[in-house]
Amino acid sequence: MDIIRILEEEEPFFKLLGLRLLELRRGYSKLELPYREEFTRRGKVIQGGIIFSAMDFAGAIATMTVNDGEDQVTQELKVSFLEPMFKGPFIVEGNVIRRGGSTVVVKTTFTDSEGKLGAIGLGTWILHKNKRVTK
Amino acid sequence: MDIIRILEEEEPFFKLLGLRLLELRRGYSKLELPYREEFTRRGKVIQGGIIFSAMDFAGAIATMTVNDGEDQVTQELKVSFLEPMFKGPFIVEGNVIRRGGSTVVVKTTFTDSEGKLGAIGLGTWILHKNKRVTK
Amino acid sequence: MDIIRILEEEEPFFKLLGLRLLELRRGYSKLELPYREEFTRRGKVIQGGIIFSAMDFAGAIATMTVNDGEDQVTQELKVSFLEPMFKGPFIVEGNVIRRGGSTVVVKTTFTDSEGKLGAIGLGTWILHKNKRVTK
Amino acid sequence: MDIIRILEEEEPFFKLLGLRLLELRRGYSKLELPYREEFTRRGKVIQGGIIFSAMDFAGAIATMTVNDGEDQVTQELKVSFLEPMFKGPFIVEGNVIRRGGSTVVVKTTFTDSEGKLGAIGLGTWILHKNKRVTK
Repeated sequence: MDIIRILEEEEPFFKLLGLRLLELRRGYSKLELPYREEFTRRGKVIQGGIIFSAMDFAGAIATMTVNDGEDQVTQELKVSFLEPMFKGPFIVEGNVIRRGGSTVVVKTTFTDSEGKLGAIGLGTWILHKNKRVTK
Repeated sequence: MDIIRILEEEEPFFKLLGLRLLELRRGYSKLELPYREEFTRRGKVIQGGIIFSAMDFAGAIATMTVNDGEDQVTQELKVSFLEPMFKGPFIVEGNVIRRGGSTVVVKTTFTDSEGKLGAIGLGTWILHKNKRVTK
Repeated sequence: MDIIRILEEEEPFFKLLGLRLLELRRGYSKLELPYREEFTRRGKVIQGGIIFSAMDFAGAIATMTVNDGEDQVTQELKVSFLEPMFKGPFIVEGNVIRRGGSTVVVKTTFTDSEGKLGAIGLGTWILHKNKRVTK
Repeated sequence: MDIIRILEEEEPFFKLLGLRLLELRRGYSKLELPYREEFTRRGKVIQGGIIFSAMDFAGAIATMTVNDGEDQVTQELKVSFLEPMFKGPFIVEGNVIRRGGSTVVVKTTFTDSEGKLGAIGLGTWILHKNKRVTK
């Protein structure tokens, strides 16, 4: 998969979140998310949906590195929110735990600029060998 | 809690997602999310992070209806994505399953304009009696 | 699938838990679990692992009712524990939320003899069309 | 907490599973689970409920090492099952990810005797400072 091209051309929400790809290797992804006021909730801490979305991208991109098929989708993702996060930029990482025949399990983490862990996630991605998701 | 005021004044991401509150009663919330191209991923279907974010709001708002304290946070949320979603506007609902002393468990659903279930979530919110989350 | 035969002949843990199948129809299962002292933890309430195991069976059996293949496995299961449970016998139910091509998402509940909800679960089962899990 | 005494005197299911405590230090637990035919499902692989139960104990015991209160309960636990497990004895580990004021988030793993990862879990435990769960 041409991950860079997909992110730039087909994932407008990646850009909307201001995400940047910092590192990429087989089974691993590392992203950076900026702190922006429009991403916050009461108390000016980062909104949970933003954290989840960034972790979903980190998990999806880690999955892409082990996907030799056409497409993939998030099947399920569970996130535990540990600490209020407000010291950006944030680091979001995806680590493939297991690549099965048609599914991939990924652990994700969300860390602030001082290295404090803000959220941890565990999710599953489904690989599509010969078809692409489309509306 | 003055839910309407909080959503309008303190939750910029609620507005950014174009969410509208359709219904609200004790233990229940119903929101509407528009279909917008910038919320899509490859294949022009709604991005998982958008679905999660809308469900997080539905769960949080349902929790607010049973929260007589100062604040609350999402503790954890697990979402299973069932079908690609592209027929908006979408309906997002939160149903309180149990209100405990300091936590609330909520079921959430995400449905398209034809009534097809696109995602289901199960999450926990923590109630803050006397403190507010702040950076 | 010959569900009754599988449970009786190939699932020793089903018997060990004293589970009884009360109801079975397409997309739905209802089991009964007895209260036994050896299933309890501190305070004589039912141990979480017993609750999870019973819900795993309820989900698996609900999945069997929509599985026209050879076998299936639990892919992931998340359980929220709501109340200490000690008034047996308990009712454990599985409700199929969605049957996809190769996976099934099921909601499960665990209720005491007075109808109080003790736990709620959300899980995914993988269908095996032509192969059986074996060691 | 006197963890050894609690496990031996108040947790009959710990004994029923044949669990053995191999290692214990602040924020970490390591258990051993034997392979027994009565713990298997179709195909003679370990039943999911047994895996969950062992991981629940590993998480609970890891939580006990950071709990200076009276009691605790599993709030929620999500397990992803990765591989059929049949080569025992199995190693079950709990690692505290975060110890908050009243909740603890723990990662758990289930590995066979050859080091293959069979399941991964992410859960939350609630700490009870001054009360004990009881029926």
